[in-house]
Amino acid sequence: MRLTKIEDFSGCLKGIGLANNLNSFRLIQTCPQSEARAGELLTPHGAVPTPVFLPVGSQGAVKTLTPEEVKALGINMVLANTYHLYLRPGIGVIEKLGGLHKFMAWEQTILTDSGGYQIFSLAPLRRVSDEGVIFRSHIDGSQHHITPELIVQYQESLGADIIMALDECPTYDDSLEKVEEATERTHRWAERCQKAHQRRDQALYAIVQGGIFPQLRRQSAEYLTSLDFPGYAIGGLSLGEPKEVTLAMIEETVALLPESKPRYLMGVGSPEDIIEAIARGCDIFDSALPTRVARNGALFTWQGRRNISNAAYSQMEQPVVPGCNCYTCRNFSAAYLHHLFGCDELLAYRLATIHNLGFITDFMAKIRGAIEDGTFRSFKDNFLANYQPTDEQIRLSQKQKWRERRNFR
Amino acid sequence: MRLTKIEDFSGCLKGIGLANNLNSFRLIQTCPQSEARAGELLTPHGAVPTPVFLPVGSQGAVKTLTPEEVKALGINMVLANTYHLYLRPGIGVIEKLGGLHKFMAWEQTILTDSGGYQIFSLAPLRRVSDEGVIFRSHIDGSQHHITPELIVQYQESLGADIIMALDECPTYDDSLEKVEEATERTHRWAERCQKAHQRRDQALYAIVQGGIFPQLRRQSAEYLTSLDFPGYAIGGLSLGEPKEVTLAMIEETVALLPESKPRYLMGVGSPEDIIEAIARGCDIFDSALPTRVARNGALFTWQGRRNISNAAYSQMEQPVVPGCNCYTCRNFSAAYLHHLFGCDELLAYRLATIHNLGFITDFMAKIRGAIEDGTFRSFKDNFLANYQPTDEQIRLSQKQKWRERRNFR
Repeated sequence: MRLTKIEDFSGCLKGIGLANNLNSFRLIQTCPQSEARAGELLTPHGAVPTPVFLPVGSQGAVKTLTPEEVKALGINMVLANTYHLYLRPGIGVIEKLGGLHKFMAWEQTILTDSGGYQIFSLAPLRRVSDEGVIFRSHIDGSQHHITPELIVQYQESLGADIIMALDECPTYDDSLEKVEEATERTHRWAERCQKAHQRRDQALYAIVQGGIFPQLRRQSAEYLTSLDFPGYAIGGLSLGEPKEVTLAMIEETVALLPESKPRYLMGVGSPEDIIEAIARGCDIFDSALPTRVARNGALFTWQGRRNISNAAYSQMEQPVVPGCNCYTCRNFSAAYLHHLFGCDELLAYRLATIHNLGFITDFMAKIRGAIEDGTFRSFKDNFLANYQPTDEQIRLSQKQKWRERRNFR
Repeated sequence: MRLTKIEDFSGCLKGIGLANNLNSFRLIQTCPQSEARAGELLTPHGAVPTPVFLPVGSQGAVKTLTPEEVKALGINMVLANTYHLYLRPGIGVIEKLGGLHKFMAWEQTILTDSGGYQIFSLAPLRRVSDEGVIFRSHIDGSQHHITPELIVQYQESLGADIIMALDECPTYDDSLEKVEEATERTHRWAERCQKAHQRRDQALYAIVQGGIFPQLRRQSAEYLTSLDFPGYAIGGLSLGEPKEVTLAMIEETVALLPESKPRYLMGVGSPEDIIEAIARGCDIFDSALPTRVARNGALFTWQGRRNISNAAYSQMEQPVVPGCNCYTCRNFSAAYLHHLFGCDELLAYRLATIHNLGFITDFMAKIRGAIEDGTFRSFKDNFLANYQPTDEQIRLSQKQKWRERRNFR
């Protein structure tokens, strides 16, 4: 077999089904008492054990941290966002500078989200048609037109290892008709993305939509599965609907996804939600929550989130989580962190971010270990018995605080 | 000689003049063509080659950086501020937690400023008498009363290696009478600080005042020298007076200070000012300038400060200073930094801070090397020929920007 051009080689790989060698997933262990699974993603930038949590680096940086620090936390895959990078600094700039890995100095695996969710949640005005979306930038109001083909082209230019199809993301309280229309459009767009996708070193995942309607979720999972993507995301959840509904939708969807492909639950990042979704068969997670709440002083402990600004911490010599192996807990007292937050020192946001990402990474490693040991169910029961979930009111007030501050943070 | 108590031992050290063994200064080389000198401070927390620039960690943290990062920059001495730490988290908290070194996880040398300057510049209301100062906190308006004795006691509790006497800091345009009064009070307070000072492992430096009046500067230097402190600071300069006046006051003061003692020019931090002051015999410098302007995107280069937000950097693949050995320049393009500043990503402030502190540290090392090699004059001429100082207008607009943002940074 003689190959003269990269294109030939790509075509060849596609033809004989070898694409998966560059970007593959293998199941290592399944839990006999739940749908939980331990596996491994292989990408051109390394191996990623699953279940895995991806820190969010929407604009090409995990907020407050250097890539060196992220790596030191044991993290080997991050998420970036096509919508944000398209608007700033522009896809062309990153391409010219050698692609996203080089631009953000991250040598491990990257997944880029297509930006569908951001267009439908951040952009102040948009007009959707089958052709694509016309929207206005949330930064300067400028008008932009994107299509499934363009989103794939942009993600090929960025060069992430895993890229996402463009989806239309309805809100959780939209009508059946509206959600149905969005779901069907998402399907047509996924197909067009698949056709447009050239780079065989990247894996293109499809996004299952369907809102909170079981029949739509099933249709969506079935339809997209028939197109044979190398991975499937579950989008449009955790947007305000009750938790039982989220979990029910995950169950409906996962039941129809192929066992051999990775399943990525988008936008879920609290420990109590992650572990429930793992029990239902999800492998990949991303969310800004652990880093965002960190910047508001909410730190994960095995008993739940704690606010470091509480007076109880003002003189505490111990770290926030005694025995925690993160840089923050190894070096600083809770009192020091309390002090830094009191003074709005930028170091506070870093140290809290390091702790929360260290906690989640440790949590995921423990879960993987438990699945491999066959002790996942007892690990989960034990974790949930000790962990006090943050109540809805605190969540909302944290989110409000974040919205108020986002302009300068 | 039998010693039963620490106090006995301290008294003994004081009596036989051994206090300097714990905290000493030695001259290594003087420049034949200027007053520049290379030396070494020895403190209980290590050796510090001089001339040295101290990054400012007023509230117990060098803004945006971990102690690990500060150390990795080759920095082995930082400044903290008694006024700030007294207000937050309180001296008692830090003492209870094992002292300032442990609190901020900094194992090298610390100098604490007495807070005199802050009381006279930040506190919204104050009443000065010979007894001390009554002032209101700039944070919550609460009223506080401090005296020279208390300031020494607080600094002994914090446990820095070098501590400062309380001084009264007039503004640069105060009348001769007012400055004279403040200078004489500063002398009486220095004497009281000296008497109150117990910890022999700490060196207490006096602060020369005298505003922009040569005769008062001389009187102050002579008077404080007669009290035999282990080090002398020059305070009350670089507060808005013309540069030639600053330099003239430094010359007047240094001429009367003992050669064998370190000379600390407070609050001066721009490269062009530092090198002129070194040529006039100063050894130690501190200023928030390099870190503050970094957070506004102004980065040091050998040609002067450059603003990374300029469009010229938007696609620049090279680092800000090609060949610079700092973490920022080793890992990131100028375009990436430009992008992070454009998005207000917190990582921007860190990477810029690392660069500016790395630059100043490298600059100080080059100056020391030149003094030791006998090439300081040509190094200085060469540096100043290439370095374009920031003009006064840009300086003022940067400072204004900083004032506007200080509440949330």
